[in-house]
Amino acid sequence: MDFSPDCPLCTANPDTLLWRDDKLRIIRVDEPRYPGYLRIVWQRHKAEMTDIDPMDRLHLMRTVFQVERLQRILLRPDKINLASLGNQVPHLHWHLIPRWRGDPCFPDAVWAPPRHDPARAAAWSDACEALAPHVERLHLALSTRGPAAEPPRA
Amino acid sequence: MDFSPDCPLCTANPDTLLWRDDKLRIIRVDEPRYPGYLRIVWQRHKAEMTDIDPMDRLHLMRTVFQVERLQRILLRPDKINLASLGNQVPHLHWHLIPRWRGDPCFPDAVWAPPRHDPARAAAWSDACEALAPHVERLHLALSTRGPAAEPPRA
Repeated sequence: MDFSPDCPLCTANPDTLLWRDDKLRIIRVDEPRYPGYLRIVWQRHKAEMTDIDPMDRLHLMRTVFQVERLQRILLRPDKINLASLGNQVPHLHWHLIPRWRGDPCFPDAVWAPPRHDPARAAAWSDACEALAPHVERLHLALSTRGPAAEPPRA
Repeated sequence: MDFSPDCPLCTANPDTLLWRDDKLRIIRVDEPRYPGYLRIVWQRHKAEMTDIDPMDRLHLMRTVFQVERLQRILLRPDKINLASLGNQVPHLHWHLIPRWRGDPCFPDAVWAPPRHDPARAAAWSDACEALAPHVERLHLALSTRGPAAEPPRA
């Protein structure tokens, strides 16, 4: 099945779309505590990586790693988290989440309960503010030149 | 850096090892509530996918999808979850987690707090028991024939 009328990922939201080709699209995730969080969404309604052709898998994973590279160069996170879950929305998509030692859930997954006390939360809020122009640069690089672009000098 | 003396993933544990080649190994995760949970661990001490060569990335991801295929054929889960996090142990490894609607965290990630009430927990415990021989078959297929093997008829 290529399209499911009730699936929230079958229709692109122009507000969050950064880049697309005929196979996939890269969207920003508006999660203020996780700067630079992106998703790569497969255009067709497929649930699993092994539901798509090997060449399509290659294309999707190549794009994931191109975007990871841009996130690392432009944001200098302590770690990158990659995940394809889809339990809630079984339409193939990858989470690409830059992580920092000071972020709310570190070193747990972002799906775990936050560990933050109020002092750490304030410090993290300042850190997010400092990261904002770098996130802008990441979004601009993707939207103007795509995932294969050479990154601008940070 | 290829080896880190303090890293728990730099040394293979023979008790959980199912299969290995010179680049990676497949290990079972003894998490009784998640039957068929496997990890694929890169042999060298690297943190990120973009820290290894493109050909190595290809080999690692090909193995991930081969194992996903075996998990789907032999266990028939409702969903497969794939994740490379490494916040706690920054040594490249993939989580391959078969998921079922009745498992403790579904539809959340396995790193979220469990949703189970006692009645669902008992039902899930029975389901895990029923899955055990299929998990055995998965482990046997991997340990005797590797991830590229044709699966035995379930």
